[in-house]
Amino acid sequence: MDYQAILNVIEKELEHFDPGGKVPDYIPELAKIPANKFGMHLYCLNGDDFCFGDHDERFSIQSISKVFTLALAKKHGGKKIWKRVDVEPSGDPFNSLLQLEKEKGIPRNPFINAGSLVIADILISELDNPKEQLLEFVREISDDPSIEYDKKVAASENEHGYRNIALVNYMKALGNIENDADDILDFYFHQCSIAMSCRQLAKAFIIFANEGKTLNTNKKVIGANSAKRINAIMQTCGFYDEAGEFSFRVGLPGKSGVGGGIVAIHPGEYSVAVWSPLLNEKGNSEKGMKALEELTSLTGLSIF
Amino acid sequence: MDYQAILNVIEKELEHFDPGGKVPDYIPELAKIPANKFGMHLYCLNGDDFCFGDHDERFSIQSISKVFTLALAKKHGGKKIWKRVDVEPSGDPFNSLLQLEKEKGIPRNPFINAGSLVIADILISELDNPKEQLLEFVREISDDPSIEYDKKVAASENEHGYRNIALVNYMKALGNIENDADDILDFYFHQCSIAMSCRQLAKAFIIFANEGKTLNTNKKVIGANSAKRINAIMQTCGFYDEAGEFSFRVGLPGKSGVGGGIVAIHPGEYSVAVWSPLLNEKGNSEKGMKALEELTSLTGLSIF
Amino acid sequence: MDYQAILNVIEKELEHFDPGGKVPDYIPELAKIPANKFGMHLYCLNGDDFCFGDHDERFSIQSISKVFTLALAKKHGGKKIWKRVDVEPSGDPFNSLLQLEKEKGIPRNPFINAGSLVIADILISELDNPKEQLLEFVREISDDPSIEYDKKVAASENEHGYRNIALVNYMKALGNIENDADDILDFYFHQCSIAMSCRQLAKAFIIFANEGKTLNTNKKVIGANSAKRINAIMQTCGFYDEAGEFSFRVGLPGKSGVGGGIVAIHPGEYSVAVWSPLLNEKGNSEKGMKALEELTSLTGLSIF
Amino acid sequence: MDYQAILNVIEKELEHFDPGGKVPDYIPELAKIPANKFGMHLYCLNGDDFCFGDHDERFSIQSISKVFTLALAKKHGGKKIWKRVDVEPSGDPFNSLLQLEKEKGIPRNPFINAGSLVIADILISELDNPKEQLLEFVREISDDPSIEYDKKVAASENEHGYRNIALVNYMKALGNIENDADDILDFYFHQCSIAMSCRQLAKAFIIFANEGKTLNTNKKVIGANSAKRINAIMQTCGFYDEAGEFSFRVGLPGKSGVGGGIVAIHPGEYSVAVWSPLLNEKGNSEKGMKALEELTSLTGLSIF
Repeated sequence: MDYQAILNVIEKELEHFDPGGKVPDYIPELAKIPANKFGMHLYCLNGDDFCFGDHDERFSIQSISKVFTLALAKKHGGKKIWKRVDVEPSGDPFNSLLQLEKEKGIPRNPFINAGSLVIADILISELDNPKEQLLEFVREISDDPSIEYDKKVAASENEHGYRNIALVNYMKALGNIENDADDILDFYFHQCSIAMSCRQLAKAFIIFANEGKTLNTNKKVIGANSAKRINAIMQTCGFYDEAGEFSFRVGLPGKSGVGGGIVAIHPGEYSVAVWSPLLNEKGNSEKGMKALEELTSLTGLSIF
Repeated sequence: MDYQAILNVIEKELEHFDPGGKVPDYIPELAKIPANKFGMHLYCLNGDDFCFGDHDERFSIQSISKVFTLALAKKHGGKKIWKRVDVEPSGDPFNSLLQLEKEKGIPRNPFINAGSLVIADILISELDNPKEQLLEFVREISDDPSIEYDKKVAASENEHGYRNIALVNYMKALGNIENDADDILDFYFHQCSIAMSCRQLAKAFIIFANEGKTLNTNKKVIGANSAKRINAIMQTCGFYDEAGEFSFRVGLPGKSGVGGGIVAIHPGEYSVAVWSPLLNEKGNSEKGMKALEELTSLTGLSIF
Repeated sequence: MDYQAILNVIEKELEHFDPGGKVPDYIPELAKIPANKFGMHLYCLNGDDFCFGDHDERFSIQSISKVFTLALAKKHGGKKIWKRVDVEPSGDPFNSLLQLEKEKGIPRNPFINAGSLVIADILISELDNPKEQLLEFVREISDDPSIEYDKKVAASENEHGYRNIALVNYMKALGNIENDADDILDFYFHQCSIAMSCRQLAKAFIIFANEGKTLNTNKKVIGANSAKRINAIMQTCGFYDEAGEFSFRVGLPGKSGVGGGIVAIHPGEYSVAVWSPLLNEKGNSEKGMKALEELTSLTGLSIF
Repeated sequence: MDYQAILNVIEKELEHFDPGGKVPDYIPELAKIPANKFGMHLYCLNGDDFCFGDHDERFSIQSISKVFTLALAKKHGGKKIWKRVDVEPSGDPFNSLLQLEKEKGIPRNPFINAGSLVIADILISELDNPKEQLLEFVREISDDPSIEYDKKVAASENEHGYRNIALVNYMKALGNIENDADDILDFYFHQCSIAMSCRQLAKAFIIFANEGKTLNTNKKVIGANSAKRINAIMQTCGFYDEAGEFSFRVGLPGKSGVGGGIVAIHPGEYSVAVWSPLLNEKGNSEKGMKALEELTSLTGLSIF
């Protein structure tokens, strides 16, 4: 498969594609990113890689970090995490709160904010230095020690994160939070602030396409079964209430973030990251989704 | 892969597995089925097949029929069906009604009852003899002219289908139903009453594993792209509010019915049907799910 | 109290008041009513009466009829009706369906559609000729044998009443409906179609201001306690999700209908009916509410 | 009317009445109160008063304080408070959060927690020393300078008030909170901690029965119109999702608190307070409601 030729077609086709939508304005630091950034990077399991555009520029990975923290929690917290968070799609943007009340503080899945806050709580209980250890984990799977938290972005979220403060306190009232709300929010705002490029993300996500093994070192950092199950959750829950649409159009497990990034993987084949900051009304990068739809159309390959 | 050996292991392992749960009692004809029925049938794309237990006994396919009517509507109604029904998981059992109100009569996906009633409405508008043509379609893809509606089951649902009458009238009030409620319900209760064995179901579902082509005749009955997209919807929406759980545990697209049947497919590999009448509280065959979980564990293969 | 002088002030003040809003278009027969109709009629317990404008013209009482059927059900069904319908405000327009699911088919109160359909079901079970007996009851308390169903309006609702068909079937599925859906809907559409003038409504509602006794004959048609309790329900539930607003601005128990009528009572003092067809977005006559607000402001009297 | 004789009957009748239910355990300080406390105090507008039992023992007024803060906000914030809080019943215990999302941070009424937190926010913006001024206001209308905050109770709520922290932050995210969450919660937990006896509460609430004037000094502390409107809100929203039931059974405006107190008023006649700590599942004092139901039954008087 000549992936570079296919990426070239995608870059060309979408050069003048206007996705509409907007850059999120509720996180001031993100509102400053130029809307026309566009890049893509794909790593095959054999190490070949292909790319175009702003693929080497770092951006705020935001909710994509929820996959990293889930993988880390699986390593350290094991199966008990599934007693505190479910694996079902949430169905609805506002459900998070209504649903928490109905289901006694158990978030619907680890990729909605409530769920990722519970994962953060678990990591704080299990790890000695949670923020450091998360960064080490991401650096290890990316084979790139230069990855850092963006302190400005973390501070920016901290100031305006009232909704997340509400969520964590609400779950504490319902008995599903162990640690101090402030510690959890500090960790959560840091995980969201990690800055990575498409290249770094694609390399890091190889572990999910490769039965838990990293690209460069072939080290098994999570179990093959964990990788498979995290893929299943990405497939059904990776795109808020647009998970079905992504599955329908693209046909790969993936995860998006409000920084405009999307990562998707084809198990046994490749992992791919795309970046375009303009978000549709569901909060996903519209041009990124389009690029990935083209990728599976042009390659003729999806998991389905 | 020695599928027969694997099926033998599953049969043996689950021989004394007590799934709990119960046979649905709201459809009197279904309440009569012996709870201990258990059978499985798997067809590979090359035509090899493997089986055990009650794999040749016919049962009421119920909601599994929603995949057949969706495929038929895609053939005859084309893309316009996606204006009247969405492709997102519903998230919640009661959402069907709340969600319909919020989203102006557009059901969340074609596999919840509301969505399948809209698909029925489309088929009634598009086809000359919808009930006959649905039966012909199912007979064609199964290569089995003996498949029939079970009139007793259809009549039994008709008498007690108040919730479906409510749904179709509610959507009519919201402007998303064209035909008479009675005609739609008559069609819908008939589609659910189709009686098929595991063998017949597995053979019929090969079209979704085989890019739209039937097993015996290799005839393309739906487009490869349609097959891929229907698989994606099965993956995210095939098991009511347990779709995430099935995806997580089994890792294949599939569809269940309250008759105790489940069909799943591995694109490019096989299709498989399993039958065990006892349902868990989410309305899915617990033993059937367990059998499919074992299948992907023992083969080491899933789409993830 | 010089009520006629006060009514004259109200008529004059509101002569050029433009309430905005619109005549309901989902019932074709109601859509034909001229929007500028305006009339008011007040009866004191001593039989004195005061009026202005279109107070003698009959209009469709619609949901105001729910108070009559509740009073009749209290006479014939006694306390057992409170096992099948609650007395709490519904809080929310769409709640009717969500709430029914959560609360197992028990409507929140007898003045939302679901609740009044249960009351209709009770009357059909308890009475030999429910439609005739309802009409007799309304004629008796109004002391006016000319009151009739408007068959055109009843037929008009029948054709387009999909939402009510949905409600009654949904409650039947949940076990809170005894009779055939068609019979209940026929009764319900008839009760809503009753045509009455402000004069007739004000006279009929005297029973609620007068401890259950009619104006002209002083006959006790319902118990004093029943009258008091129906008043309490009108106070908290008489105006859909604008009950609090009416209570806040007017301070009297009352009931509105989408025909543009509102009736209110001051226990021990008077009953009053007003008619103006333009409805606000909550479905209540905006000019009617304004007129009643002026009435309690100018008289300085409310129950609070 | 011989109120003392009637109160004696109530005391006797309910001597052995077992209301079931329980003392709230989520506020540790309240969990210590003996369940068998029972007292009642009634003040007529002419100053006569009647009582029995533990009528002079102080308890935590909790949500009854919401009426005091609303009255104070009306004095200082005027009509603009109705842009930030509505006057409709909430219909549902969990609605507070779902409803806030739907209605953009505008609480349904000032007597649900969310609404009272907005009132607290308004008072903090309007007053120089909000906590001192609230206490002065309550002391003035009770004509009793000994009324105090219970610092232990306030601290006890502070530690466990995660749900209220969630609410205030959630509304801040939706733009309906001006001040710091911590300041609002400190004020709110203090208002709830005020300790008063039935005698003090009955005397304080005379202002709502007496067109805004205090009992002893006859000073107009709020407008007659404000008093009337606050009564209307108590009538429709004073008892969480049991407001309809209280209106139905008792027929007076009132307000309950989880400390087991209930205050009710008959405009132009009297105000009455009752205390019994055991709460039913809706969070209201069951014996207190029963006592007030008996009071309006035995006197034959209610506002209806």
